[in-house]
Amino acid sequence: MEQKAGYEKPDQEKEFVKEITPRSVDFSQWYIDVVLKAKMMDYAPIKGFMAIRPSGYALWEKIQEQMDRRFKETGHQNAYFPLFIPHELLEKEAEHVEGFSPEVAWVTKGGDEILSEPLVVRPTSEAIICDFYSRWVQSWRDLPVLINQWCNVVRWEKSTRPFLRTSEFLWQEGHTCHRTEEEAEEEALKMLEVYRECIETELAIPAVVGRKTEREKFAGALRTYTVEALMSDGRGLQAGTSHNLGQHFAKVFDITFLDKDDQLKHVWQTSWGVSTRLIGALIMVHGDDRGLIIPPRLATFQAVIVPILTKKDRKRVLESVQELADQLQGNIRVKLDDREEYSPGWKFNDWEMRGVPLRIEIGPKDLDRGQVVLVRRDSGEKFFVPREELPTLLPGLLDQIQDDMLKKALEFREANTRSGSDYAEFKQIMEEKRGFYMASWCGDAACEEKVKDDTKATIRCILFDQQPADENCLVCDKKAKEVVYFARAY
Amino acid sequence: MEQKAGYEKPDQEKEFVKEITPRSVDFSQWYIDVVLKAKMMDYAPIKGFMAIRPSGYALWEKIQEQMDRRFKETGHQNAYFPLFIPHELLEKEAEHVEGFSPEVAWVTKGGDEILSEPLVVRPTSEAIICDFYSRWVQSWRDLPVLINQWCNVVRWEKSTRPFLRTSEFLWQEGHTCHRTEEEAEEEALKMLEVYRECIETELAIPAVVGRKTEREKFAGALRTYTVEALMSDGRGLQAGTSHNLGQHFAKVFDITFLDKDDQLKHVWQTSWGVSTRLIGALIMVHGDDRGLIIPPRLATFQAVIVPILTKKDRKRVLESVQELADQLQGNIRVKLDDREEYSPGWKFNDWEMRGVPLRIEIGPKDLDRGQVVLVRRDSGEKFFVPREELPTLLPGLLDQIQDDMLKKALEFREANTRSGSDYAEFKQIMEEKRGFYMASWCGDAACEEKVKDDTKATIRCILFDQQPADENCLVCDKKAKEVVYFARAY
Repeated sequence: MEQKAGYEKPDQEKEFVKEITPRSVDFSQWYIDVVLKAKMMDYAPIKGFMAIRPSGYALWEKIQEQMDRRFKETGHQNAYFPLFIPHELLEKEAEHVEGFSPEVAWVTKGGDEILSEPLVVRPTSEAIICDFYSRWVQSWRDLPVLINQWCNVVRWEKSTRPFLRTSEFLWQEGHTCHRTEEEAEEEALKMLEVYRECIETELAIPAVVGRKTEREKFAGALRTYTVEALMSDGRGLQAGTSHNLGQHFAKVFDITFLDKDDQLKHVWQTSWGVSTRLIGALIMVHGDDRGLIIPPRLATFQAVIVPILTKKDRKRVLESVQELADQLQGNIRVKLDDREEYSPGWKFNDWEMRGVPLRIEIGPKDLDRGQVVLVRRDSGEKFFVPREELPTLLPGLLDQIQDDMLKKALEFREANTRSGSDYAEFKQIMEEKRGFYMASWCGDAACEEKVKDDTKATIRCILFDQQPADENCLVCDKKAKEVVYFARAY
Repeated sequence: MEQKAGYEKPDQEKEFVKEITPRSVDFSQWYIDVVLKAKMMDYAPIKGFMAIRPSGYALWEKIQEQMDRRFKETGHQNAYFPLFIPHELLEKEAEHVEGFSPEVAWVTKGGDEILSEPLVVRPTSEAIICDFYSRWVQSWRDLPVLINQWCNVVRWEKSTRPFLRTSEFLWQEGHTCHRTEEEAEEEALKMLEVYRECIETELAIPAVVGRKTEREKFAGALRTYTVEALMSDGRGLQAGTSHNLGQHFAKVFDITFLDKDDQLKHVWQTSWGVSTRLIGALIMVHGDDRGLIIPPRLATFQAVIVPILTKKDRKRVLESVQELADQLQGNIRVKLDDREEYSPGWKFNDWEMRGVPLRIEIGPKDLDRGQVVLVRRDSGEKFFVPREELPTLLPGLLDQIQDDMLKKALEFREANTRSGSDYAEFKQIMEEKRGFYMASWCGDAACEEKVKDDTKATIRCILFDQQPADENCLVCDKKAKEVVYFARAY
């Protein structure tokens, strides 16, 4: 979206890209080609904004369904808070306002009325939610508060990229209040694990978890935990974060409760979120030069049936594929593409580009032989399979594809996770190969800054409970405190 | 929300209402008492805005689930369009801009940048969606476009009431494009019927369908169809609308397609929506002086188990109710309220107020007798039931409650639907009894206006395919063209 300035009618030539640029030629262009050609999104007539088209939104619905189920299983309820935040509320927490003020959209007029105090469109909802919580929480009986909201947020971004960074995006934000510090810490780590497990199980993306540095943590948090994934171009991507907010917000918003011991205390809070950015991660981890590859568990259609029609056998083939579609419906999510205005070859390319995990081809000869042709999107493998075996074979095969996709992504990540203690070597790797680089760090922000200046890489996360193998910091050679992952990131 | 001016910290005394005002004393206050006390919502620190609390939002999730299933069964897909609309897009359709301009919120600054063209926060999305459709639709092969979006919208309202009219609300908006006028008309009527059936089946609210007058139709539509319900105070409420947009938007936004005959044509469009307003309808149709009554099909918890604990029998009663809860889990959505910090009496009142359809009480004596006490929220009836019969009895009983609630609402509506041709009598009824009033109308906007001035009632809908029984207009006595429902409405 970087190329657009102000409002401008998108150029149709540019937009309906005819070919997909190979990843090896230009990964960024490959990504744009795929999201446009697979009709995942389209640019809005406002710089930095986009529409999520049905094939992109269907992925978001599946991600929501899987995440939401896990949130509810861990005792959370959904709610909805106002889109607008009075500026004075945002200003209450000093770090928070400093972090978000530069990127908010301002509402200054409502109807015919010029607002006496401008409103900001939520960039995140801590401030407005804490205002409500200060009234809802009175007693220890009201705790814990375990609330999540699915909504849109706006952050005025200068440089944007579909799904990964846009001025408006969809997300969920959990906001919880607890009696004790321990409970809040436990919650923050529990939701981090929910994210990691869901992203691995459903999106087939292996994820590293850890803590953010002071420089990279959420504005207003005590500690930020993060789920980090590696894209297939070797760049890192933050896939979800969970914050222990401590009592920072509780103190400025006056969220207090009468505890069992009759003392008035401030609550301990967390917040955590994942966004439509996960769609971008999914594309960049699994996609190839033919387009998307969707993991079976998230696919709207897990298999597409494409009949090969000839004039002579048209009717019997169509009847037969309809019968097969009906038969498979209970077992898997199947789509019959019996459109006659498109050729089988066109359909093969189109469904491959859209990433449907399995293709089932049936022509007159297959019908005579009682077989189908089965093509795996992830590996490209092609099998002849007896038709009657499909209902029992397909669910297992889809599980296999899901496993294989995770395994492949994991192998890629392992092959692209390096470690060492030679700064010159590190710089060269960040420049040439990228990937994750595990190293020891002294904990000093100056070293972190130097790495960023030298290589554009940042500390993605501080690993949990790990003693530095190397005693000295990768950068300054002073005594190391932490083990961290560096990467150039989205 | 009318009482608040500007930003003001809500008064806790006012907010945590201790008692529910009887409906006969003050229906409006009863409504406010119920939504606050049942923790359905809370006022935001911005006039006219609110938070939807978990018990209110859970209803919205159930409504969404039921509506969304029906949308998908009728071939629609979900998508997401930008929150902001360039003002010049909103201005394109003359009636549309006139209808919505006075009530939009304006974004004039993004980050540090003063916007050269201000953006409006969507009050509805026809303008921005049509801009996308003008690029997405090229050929008859791209039709029909059957897209829906679940989102928030903002309309700067002067006078607001929780769920019924707020400056921000949640809704869905379907936006479709068709090859022919007939297809668009069929779609508009199909979705009207989806709404009517869903509202009747799931919300247990009987609904009248019909067409809006020119005065009441959607700004920019060719024809607006509506689902109208009657609240228990005798006032009408528009529960959903479906618009045939004709080619109004297609022409100004240039949405054209190459038809099978190689002619370039404008598409025919519809849009249709229901909102969180339905939660208000649900409360006002079914609620009573003890609080909410939720229809079983929408209830988060269809039954609540309240153990009656004594010191002596505490342990065996708690074990027994846990066992019962586990046993019923597969059959119905059941909640065990085993909190010991609240008394059974307090819990009875609280769950009644929250409208849970069934209460199951179990004390030591019930345990000894192998029975439970079952209390219906809708009728207040109390039964002793052998415990082993519960798993088979409850699903049927919940269906019965759902049916009885619809029947009761239908009887109320029938008793409060009057008809006639005497204008003086009509005026008196609108003043004293309210309800729906069926009458003949000449079709002249002047008569419609006069009714509004005289009685505050409006034409809720023009009935389909009905010839005026009375030959003359209720108001002017000239020849009647239509049969309409009048009511004072929310």
